[in-house]
Amino acid sequence: MVHDYRRSAVSLMMKLHREKRRKSLISAERLRRSGLALSFRLKMEENGKDKGPIVLALDRIPEGSGDLLSRSIAILEKVHPYVCALKLNRHLVLPLGLFSGIRRIVDKAHNLGLPVIMDCKINDVGYTNRVIAENYFNAGFDAVIANPFVGWEEGLQPVFETARRLDKGVILLVYMSHKAASEGYGQKVLDRETNKLKPQYVVFAEKALAWKADGAVVGATYPSKIREVHEILGAKVPIYSPGIGAQGGDLKAASEAGSKYFIIGRSITLADNPAEAAKAFREAAKRLM
Amino acid sequence: MVHDYRRSAVSLMMKLHREKRRKSLISAERLRRSGLALSFRLKMEENGKDKGPIVLALDRIPEGSGDLLSRSIAILEKVHPYVCALKLNRHLVLPLGLFSGIRRIVDKAHNLGLPVIMDCKINDVGYTNRVIAENYFNAGFDAVIANPFVGWEEGLQPVFETARRLDKGVILLVYMSHKAASEGYGQKVLDRETNKLKPQYVVFAEKALAWKADGAVVGATYPSKIREVHEILGAKVPIYSPGIGAQGGDLKAASEAGSKYFIIGRSITLADNPAEAAKAFREAAKRLM
Repeated sequence: MVHDYRRSAVSLMMKLHREKRRKSLISAERLRRSGLALSFRLKMEENGKDKGPIVLALDRIPEGSGDLLSRSIAILEKVHPYVCALKLNRHLVLPLGLFSGIRRIVDKAHNLGLPVIMDCKINDVGYTNRVIAENYFNAGFDAVIANPFVGWEEGLQPVFETARRLDKGVILLVYMSHKAASEGYGQKVLDRETNKLKPQYVVFAEKALAWKADGAVVGATYPSKIREVHEILGAKVPIYSPGIGAQGGDLKAASEAGSKYFIIGRSITLADNPAEAAKAFREAAKRLM
Repeated sequence: MVHDYRRSAVSLMMKLHREKRRKSLISAERLRRSGLALSFRLKMEENGKDKGPIVLALDRIPEGSGDLLSRSIAILEKVHPYVCALKLNRHLVLPLGLFSGIRRIVDKAHNLGLPVIMDCKINDVGYTNRVIAENYFNAGFDAVIANPFVGWEEGLQPVFETARRLDKGVILLVYMSHKAASEGYGQKVLDRETNKLKPQYVVFAEKALAWKADGAVVGATYPSKIREVHEILGAKVPIYSPGIGAQGGDLKAASEAGSKYFIIGRSITLADNPAEAAKAFREAAKRLM
């Protein structure tokens, strides 16, 4: 019941938003500036429909003329028509600084109509997690990625509270794309309620559902895990899959298993023609939808 | 055998280093500048003996005159005689920027003879973990904190490799200080080799031993966990305990259970007189040694 109501409300808000946009009364950018921000989840739904399901991970930036900031923005400007969101990580945050270079990239992405996700994999104590989330949200980010391993009380609760207050998003890690993911995300853990063993990623998917996360990360390199997690989450929590291309993940397999968004980095940023590469991924993804 | 050899070598190097220092031929600072850096582990051993076991966590900086950077450095200047190392977290890194403000704090700490630990709780894929570690080490940090949950291959292996190459340290999270630590760090997991259940923090302590970590973090709020972890690690991996003071941890209980270093933040930085507060913690800790 609660969920149906929420889905109807979301649907109505999206309809209203589309109508307003059609009448050119209000743009997403003006909406943002007015303080009446669309929630992260809604922005992703909208953009996914308009621009396809590819999320650009602006991590590895090739050498070239100009400084790191201008080279990063140049790629974003070329690629933006073919992606629905931007994801940043410490690759750029550490050298460029959050409130200097990074803020300029975030503003540029917003001006191009893209929400921006900070892949900070929050996993500290709650008091520090809140400070981390507040800093990224203050710099303009629309969502943060967090690790459910730290738990709720004095763990991720303050992150969700901060995000809800500011109309931002929280995406949880459920199964990562690297080889040793099996050590932690793939281990069997004892469920305290049922006293039965279950995979760690199932526990994390259940937390994503219970905590009303705005997304769940499952590596594209493990389609069978995507399928299992999708069976738990259904349409309630969309799956974001990194690891396509450079890390060996396959877009078709991930899509068929239930991923909604595909995070692609090096296969776009290091391509001879990043725009063409992004467009090709977008077209491939659209054919699967 | 390997370990005894290593311990003898460490002991000999420390003896040589102390002798050199006594003869005023070389100071730690000149050693550092000469490129012949003492490893992080050795620096901590030395400083722990000279200056006591308190690690200053410069996180929450009270309001006052001057900007955040100058207020942070002012506390460090007051407190440095009573602490053996400095630990920073995103509280300062995000607002100040790594290669602007933070580098100045790190340089100041080094000039005061303190190694600096970056509490970044690394938990990404290996490719990104390496970039994170390299950035912090390039900014002057002597050690990074990482989460063993991400595992070894394409996980923390690149962090350890980078640290070894640069003579830096890696400290692993084993049991954190917050309430929900029981959800992840305290869960029971299936050991693949023995097919028996064991606590997650025992698995992590075993990884700290196997991966030759330079330290293990166990929250001072859980002395019984410190005791269990200390039984696994012995003198091979020193235990760092945060959560003393503001989070409710007790220095005496943590020390008796086996902690070697005590990470203290708000109970020093927010005290009316930070130097007196740090000194009091140091004296209390020295009485227990």
